Amino acid sequence: MRLIIINLDLIKGISTPSPTKIVLLIIDGLGGLPSLKTGKTELETANTPNLDQLATKGICGLIDPVSPGITPGSTPGHLALFGYDPVKFNIGRGVVEAMGIDFDLEPGDIAARGNFCTVDGAGLVTDRRAGRISTEKCTELCQLLDGLALEGVRLFVCPVREHRFVVVFRGEGLAPEVSDSDPQQAGVAPRAIVALNPHADMMAAIANKFIAQAKIVLAKHHPANMVLLRGFSRRPHLPTMSEVYKLKPAAIAGYPMYRGLAKLVGMQVLETGASIMEEFATLRQNYADYDFFFLHIKGTDSAGEDGDFDRKVRIIEEVDNALPGLTSLEPDVIVVTSDHSTPALLKGHSWHPVPILLYSKWCRADRVGEFSESACIFGGLGRFPATQIMPLAMAHALKLAKFGA
Amino acid sequence: MRLIIINLDLIKGISTPSPTKIVLLIIDGLGGLPSLKTGKTELETANTPNLDQLATKGICGLIDPVSPGITPGSTPGHLALFGYDPVKFNIGRGVVEAMGIDFDLEPGDIAARGNFCTVDGAGLVTDRRAGRISTEKCTELCQLLDGLALEGVRLFVCPVREHRFVVVFRGEGLAPEVSDSDPQQAGVAPRAIVALNPHADMMAAIANKFIAQAKIVLAKHHPANMVLLRGFSRRPHLPTMSEVYKLKPAAIAGYPMYRGLAKLVGMQVLETGASIMEEFATLRQNYADYDFFFLHIKGTDSAGEDGDFDRKVRIIEEVDNALPGLTSLEPDVIVVTSDHSTPALLKGHSWHPVPILLYSKWCRADRVGEFSESACIFGGLGRFPATQIMPLAMAHALKLAKFGA
Repeated sequence: MRLIIINLDLIKGISTPSPTKIVLLIIDGLGGLPSLKTGKTELETANTPNLDQLATKGICGLIDPVSPGITPGSTPGHLALFGYDPVKFNIGRGVVEAMGIDFDLEPGDIAARGNFCTVDGAGLVTDRRAGRISTEKCTELCQLLDGLALEGVRLFVCPVREHRFVVVFRGEGLAPEVSDSDPQQAGVAPRAIVALNPHADMMAAIANKFIAQAKIVLAKHHPANMVLLRGFSRRPHLPTMSEVYKLKPAAIAGYPMYRGLAKLVGMQVLETGASIMEEFATLRQNYADYDFFFLHIKGTDSAGEDGDFDRKVRIIEEVDNALPGLTSLEPDVIVVTSDHSTPALLKGHSWHPVPILLYSKWCRADRVGEFSESACIFGGLGRFPATQIMPLAMAHALKLAKFGA
Repeated sequence: MRLIIINLDLIKGISTPSPTKIVLLIIDGLGGLPSLKTGKTELETANTPNLDQLATKGICGLIDPVSPGITPGSTPGHLALFGYDPVKFNIGRGVVEAMGIDFDLEPGDIAARGNFCTVDGAGLVTDRRAGRISTEKCTELCQLLDGLALEGVRLFVCPVREHRFVVVFRGEGLAPEVSDSDPQQAGVAPRAIVALNPHADMMAAIANKFIAQAKIVLAKHHPANMVLLRGFSRRPHLPTMSEVYKLKPAAIAGYPMYRGLAKLVGMQVLETGASIMEEFATLRQNYADYDFFFLHIKGTDSAGEDGDFDRKVRIIEEVDNALPGLTSLEPDVIVVTSDHSTPALLKGHSWHPVPILLYSKWCRADRVGEFSESACIFGGLGRFPATQIMPLAMAHALKLAKFGA
């Protein structure tokens, strides 16, 4: 029988600072499925001479972000890329939403995901999403609720999109172990929030008070005349990448969610424009100051989610076109991969393994001469869990000492 | 990082004694990196008709001794080959050094690694290695310190090489949980050894007394006028290979370190000459008396450590040349692999996966026709952790019963 555990302590024990540099280029949702017309995936369709050249000089393989068959959200997908067990470090929904709007969570803060919803005269939920009100309306309603202080606890109510918002509770003595008020179905009343352990009594009481006040404030704002809360959670304590890997890591990401994920593991988030060219320019401008760069490309995932095969192809080609701006910096290790597949055919994240390419002077190059799903099957890295990418990148950057004598 | 833990109890529960025989041929440091001139590794450069023939009849793959990216020392590398989790069974530095000089550690013994060092008039360390005194000088100084008895505890002080020695404490009531005296830097005084738990008070006191006496004895032997101790450890209790696998195992190894490792898992260590031909002759002479042989070739690793690509190639060819002396015995299972890679280009152990070849009448042969790093990528065994080699060898020798009904 085999148990699989992640041992960051082992890496921490052998990682050593060094001047070598690692660039982790994440082309979000990169992996795809073949077009029914051509039999080629998005990556196989794209004209990518620069990635293919890097694959020729480097070593390729396929990664499973969580494990075979599991479709990861962005959070577990990225935690795995950074070397953190995505099952052990399961980040709560409220925290994920707060990261998604770049809200700077403090260590004791409790965040919850909120929905504006519709209740009828009897208080029963008739629409869990309040008819998907506009983001503008959501913003306006959040302003009505924002800034409350309940028994010394400060509340932040921030719009996300349409009916979705985040509420953050900041104060002493709070705990995240409380139930949801969201009943997850229409036709019933919102649930009272209850403490799941004695330390969370105060949290439950304050959350219920907030909901009661919100109901009063929102009474005249039908269809958004009530709120539902779920996923109360606190920013987890993760060992930072500096602690584990002795790196000075920087993140280049145009989208808030990925900046939030980078902060969670202690990366310095760099100011950047969101376009591919701007992100690559940010890399070049800051290249001297860090020894690890997480460079995140969002467009591929968005195109996949939209089911837009051709747009995803074009964005991959844009990345390939920008690549010489990265390779000319001559990083000691370049890794190109993704946090999950997003096949345009499925219009969403999927469980399919993700192609990976690792280049370093010290890699034992394989016979793969093209960066694609079908070629990576024959790569020297084999098929492996995404959590092993960081140890591999560290090794190829000569940043890991020998284990044991 | 992911570690894979093999449950030895599972194997123990299904292993059965049988007359079939397994030979595990370890060509230390076998895996390499391509020559910058030819693009071929040491193994790919070597002319190895016999290994290639065995690869054709057998099944190939690549192993990770510990896990991807981790460069193993010889101890974890070999423990994994024998099927023992190299992270769980992390052997202390003192024990490793004692094994390296073939010192027969008894179960209660505490071993520490020692350095002769130089201290100045104020007692500060000026050279942690005493100018790397000769092995002869080290031997002479060890004789001055050897054989002390402190409060009923007997001390053995044995030279290793240059400034390095081993001290073994034998007596009742000792425990290894003490700090090092070695400050790991010059310019400071050696540290007093302190107990890290209450059971180790006596150990700390005796170690400090030994150091005090050594200082007096060595006063006139500048630059080796003091000692530094570290890595206090006790031989761990590992289940023996006979217990786990029901094997009668024998080790053939010319170098003390590997004999020590074999003893640690309960192998019978056979008397042998250290040359390749002598080791293969020892196999033939003892073939009737055991059902498992660990045959260890050291020269490949030494050549890799020396950065001598060509010598490593020649030694691989010597092994290939000797191989018919093994295959003609017709073992039921032959495994050829290594405890880690030692690319001549890196002049040291490395993290690169190691080619493996398994031959048995019952293997499902793949299409690999040559024993090399690049060909093994396409082997039927895939890429897998070294701890799974023993279950695979046992299975192919028909020594494992069905698991579950």
